[in-house]
Amino acid sequence: METTAMVLDKVNSTQDLKNLSLEEMNLLSGEIRELIMKKVNTTGGHLGPNLGIVEATIALHYVFNTPEDKLVFDVSHQCYPHKILTGRKEGFTDPDKYLKYTGYTAPEESKFDLFKVGHTSTSVSLAVGLAKARDLRGGSENIIALIGDGSLSGGEAFEGLDNAAVLGSNIIVVVNDNDMSIAENEGGLYANLKLLRETNGQAECNFFKALGFDYYYVDNGNDIESLITAFKQVKDTNHPVLVHIHTLKGKGCPAAEQNKENYHWIVPGALDNNPAPTVLEEETYTSLTTDFILDKHSKDNTVIAISPATPGVSGFTKEFREKLGKCYTDVGIAEQHAVAYASGLAKGGAKPILAIMSSFVQRAYDQLSQDLALNNNPATILIFWGGITGADATHLTKYDIPLISNIPNIVYLAPTNKEEYLRMLEWSTEQKEHSVVIRVPMTEVVSCGKEDTTDYSVLNKYQVVESGSEVAILGLGNFFGLGQKVKSLLKEKTGISATLINPRFITGIDTELMESLKSNHKLVITLEDGVLEGGFGEKIASYFGNSDIKVLNFGARKEFTDRTPIEELYQRYHLTQELILEDIKKCL
Amino acid sequence: METTAMVLDKVNSTQDLKNLSLEEMNLLSGEIRELIMKKVNTTGGHLGPNLGIVEATIALHYVFNTPEDKLVFDVSHQCYPHKILTGRKEGFTDPDKYLKYTGYTAPEESKFDLFKVGHTSTSVSLAVGLAKARDLRGGSENIIALIGDGSLSGGEAFEGLDNAAVLGSNIIVVVNDNDMSIAENEGGLYANLKLLRETNGQAECNFFKALGFDYYYVDNGNDIESLITAFKQVKDTNHPVLVHIHTLKGKGCPAAEQNKENYHWIVPGALDNNPAPTVLEEETYTSLTTDFILDKHSKDNTVIAISPATPGVSGFTKEFREKLGKCYTDVGIAEQHAVAYASGLAKGGAKPILAIMSSFVQRAYDQLSQDLALNNNPATILIFWGGITGADATHLTKYDIPLISNIPNIVYLAPTNKEEYLRMLEWSTEQKEHSVVIRVPMTEVVSCGKEDTTDYSVLNKYQVVESGSEVAILGLGNFFGLGQKVKSLLKEKTGISATLINPRFITGIDTELMESLKSNHKLVITLEDGVLEGGFGEKIASYFGNSDIKVLNFGARKEFTDRTPIEELYQRYHLTQELILEDIKKCL
Repeated sequence: METTAMVLDKVNSTQDLKNLSLEEMNLLSGEIRELIMKKVNTTGGHLGPNLGIVEATIALHYVFNTPEDKLVFDVSHQCYPHKILTGRKEGFTDPDKYLKYTGYTAPEESKFDLFKVGHTSTSVSLAVGLAKARDLRGGSENIIALIGDGSLSGGEAFEGLDNAAVLGSNIIVVVNDNDMSIAENEGGLYANLKLLRETNGQAECNFFKALGFDYYYVDNGNDIESLITAFKQVKDTNHPVLVHIHTLKGKGCPAAEQNKENYHWIVPGALDNNPAPTVLEEETYTSLTTDFILDKHSKDNTVIAISPATPGVSGFTKEFREKLGKCYTDVGIAEQHAVAYASGLAKGGAKPILAIMSSFVQRAYDQLSQDLALNNNPATILIFWGGITGADATHLTKYDIPLISNIPNIVYLAPTNKEEYLRMLEWSTEQKEHSVVIRVPMTEVVSCGKEDTTDYSVLNKYQVVESGSEVAILGLGNFFGLGQKVKSLLKEKTGISATLINPRFITGIDTELMESLKSNHKLVITLEDGVLEGGFGEKIASYFGNSDIKVLNFGARKEFTDRTPIEELYQRYHLTQELILEDIKKCL
Repeated sequence: METTAMVLDKVNSTQDLKNLSLEEMNLLSGEIRELIMKKVNTTGGHLGPNLGIVEATIALHYVFNTPEDKLVFDVSHQCYPHKILTGRKEGFTDPDKYLKYTGYTAPEESKFDLFKVGHTSTSVSLAVGLAKARDLRGGSENIIALIGDGSLSGGEAFEGLDNAAVLGSNIIVVVNDNDMSIAENEGGLYANLKLLRETNGQAECNFFKALGFDYYYVDNGNDIESLITAFKQVKDTNHPVLVHIHTLKGKGCPAAEQNKENYHWIVPGALDNNPAPTVLEEETYTSLTTDFILDKHSKDNTVIAISPATPGVSGFTKEFREKLGKCYTDVGIAEQHAVAYASGLAKGGAKPILAIMSSFVQRAYDQLSQDLALNNNPATILIFWGGITGADATHLTKYDIPLISNIPNIVYLAPTNKEEYLRMLEWSTEQKEHSVVIRVPMTEVVSCGKEDTTDYSVLNKYQVVESGSEVAILGLGNFFGLGQKVKSLLKEKTGISATLINPRFITGIDTELMESLKSNHKLVITLEDGVLEGGFGEKIASYFGNSDIKVLNFGARKEFTDRTPIEELYQRYHLTQELILEDIKKCL
């Protein structure tokens, strides 16, 4: 890409695209691909999905009159070519601006982006809304939803398709079928997609036709000419159509073409080293988890690990999955099913362990409540990455405590060290009384140095780590370490020997212990690595509401932050020992 | 059913069923139908779904060896015949025991019931879990999921089917197709079901086959012999099969056959009067809602009402729906889609008003967060029936405050009277800044006697209804009236003139007002008609945690209650003015 004669130089808007020849568009595809590889290899990001969708993005913007015609991305892992073509190419050509734009569609960046999206399976429903609004307004623009085959396994996508098909007016669903989710696709639907690919879209038994769509198939979904032909055919349709395009995930990057899972999203530098994914040698809470499951599995064939299409989140590597064999299920992007499935497994006498990222467990609230907790089935759910982070707004992981801990019956545990975590895992998988959720620590592995022998069936029993007076510090889960630091600093600066408590249980109050604090404490502070609203600390504040004990709750505020550095968030929320000390002093 | 020679007399277990002749089973169907009509006409309950499934239930228990073979009901609106056949017929023959058993499957009642279920679309996922557990255990029983056509529109059902189809072992999904949801079915899938019915299951384009199922069709799903033949064919299958049975909703009750929607669930006595559903003359919050929407609609064609297959919850009668025409959408049982659709509509310039029952909004947490709130699209969502009730455990409506109010950006409003409600509706539908949720009062209509002119775009501004001192009462939404009573009683018994506050906003704290209370108040009490954990009051307690103000939070506890009388709950939770006064006295 050293030449100055790039086609991209003359493409500053989607209008410019319309003046290009087919040859130029083909050149442009290559240029965009190079930019994406270079940029993603520098910053990290989604590689495979974006490389596969380059030609389709060009063809869509060539045929349709965006932004009047509205293009809705699903999950938007595949929006980089779109960003390049819609006024944001500097974010890919200029290393200084690599971080200027998010990795997801973002209406505040461009009028070509309709929704801020980062969870899957939403595009069709959102597009149906846009299309219906157009009909009510009397408009005539095209509404296009671009959804990957992986996203089709999510129930929301089905609900959207089912409704889109009966809209009775213009809506165009483009299914980008690269035969992969993040990992392999799982589910019966994918055999039908395969059949459709193998029959050039001609098979009579057709999932999309069964839902009522007028169906089109493009076998070479990386061929701009074919795509343009298909999109022109369906442009301005007066009824719901679905265009199924067969693309190659990772196209143009041999490593990504060959190892689609590992190159779905890459870390900086991944393309330089042509790496096998690094096997981490040090112990992590992830490795503790997989080691525990493998060990359990070797003794008990009813132990089964489950992932909703995000095995990487929990360290469920290909090797791990192969070792488990039939005792591993990837349910596809189907969090609702994952939770209900786990409940059924537990009811049926198996020992399910469902690993799910905090941000995605949001998709299964009702299943946690109705399918699982109401039935008290003894499944184990591991929440990964729960805590305050500098992530983009669509992948915040600070809401799981309010989400889960306010559901009756569930026992939500917050381990603070390795020994506790392993004990909780063992207890949870063997007990038969409760639906248990464990918030896997996001910290480095901490050892307390001795085996934990706690009986966690005695619910809501907090651990007093150090007895003191005047101030009691409740350091929940990830923030127990912060609690230790606060205690030290408080001692150093004020001489106060605070009581340090490890609550362990997020879902209940140790009322006996709390009562005992009243005799020689003036202030209780709570520390939680999550949003305060609806969380742990507020319950403690409510508990002490009618007493003389004062309570200070520390945690995140209820807000969608977007790639805000975590240090900034810690300052904003007073989540450093120094700031907490200041607040304590004001209160005493 | 006055005769003593009932076939049912000799059916005390499913084993007894196996000794019956076909003729006896046909007689039994009639007997069961009579019992259901009589019982439901006395107690109220689900009529149409149960009348349609009588023969299939007999055939299932006849062919399969329940409870070793496991039968999982979806939503379990259709479990009455099952209960009659599995040891609980007294609940239908003996009027004194009419209320002994719940209207839903309940494992605590019988080992024939696998799960406590009341929300739709869950059966297939739960069954996949049971089937997989069986495989891991090395068992050989049949696993059967019985799901209605209406429930298929829910995304969780799709996720379940998609996974069931690739299970690779025995699972039998019985689709009970009566061509109705509660109201008409909505969605493209239903055209395919129609095609299958019309072709006696022979059409090549087959939704279930597309997912990979071995497919069977029974055209007369109320014919025991046909059903037995089909079930025998699939019994002990070694792979996933789906049996599509065509039944008649309301069968045997002419009124219910003709008016399937109104007889889905009936009130006591409905069959005596052969009634057109009573049109209530008095004003309700429901009638205020529909009147508001119709009036808006008459002036603005972009106003659109949406229901996720529960139009009755919000008073969206057939007449109302017809008046709105294309400005009404029933999305099917698809709450996720409903919320995303509303977000898309708002983004597209329409004015969507989505009406949803508190218990079912639980199915759309992630859509409220990601599809709606993160995008700040100005949709209006009306939560119906939010509050503490004596409902069964599957239909509790006390969790919506923690669920919704801890999501950033959403403005969740709690009107306390007619004028406020109408003002909030008007504001919400016309503003463009916020995603707004309104908790429609569950009380009788209260008028404050004068128009509300509040500008609700000034967020989190509480209303001081009466200024006082010492005690401040925050009476939220439904419980504002309780707050008034507490204030009166407090004055009467102690002479204290409390400050009475109508918070109006659930999603934020009026910090200015709260600060001002500190000067002349000792105690703040909060009253909310919902669960305390994660709710409104805890936030107030946390706010005052570092002050000398004491706080008492009143509301429900986090627990699944099951048909517990509301008076008992009010006693348990101290939700009467007398009990609250006692608690206040202890605190002062």
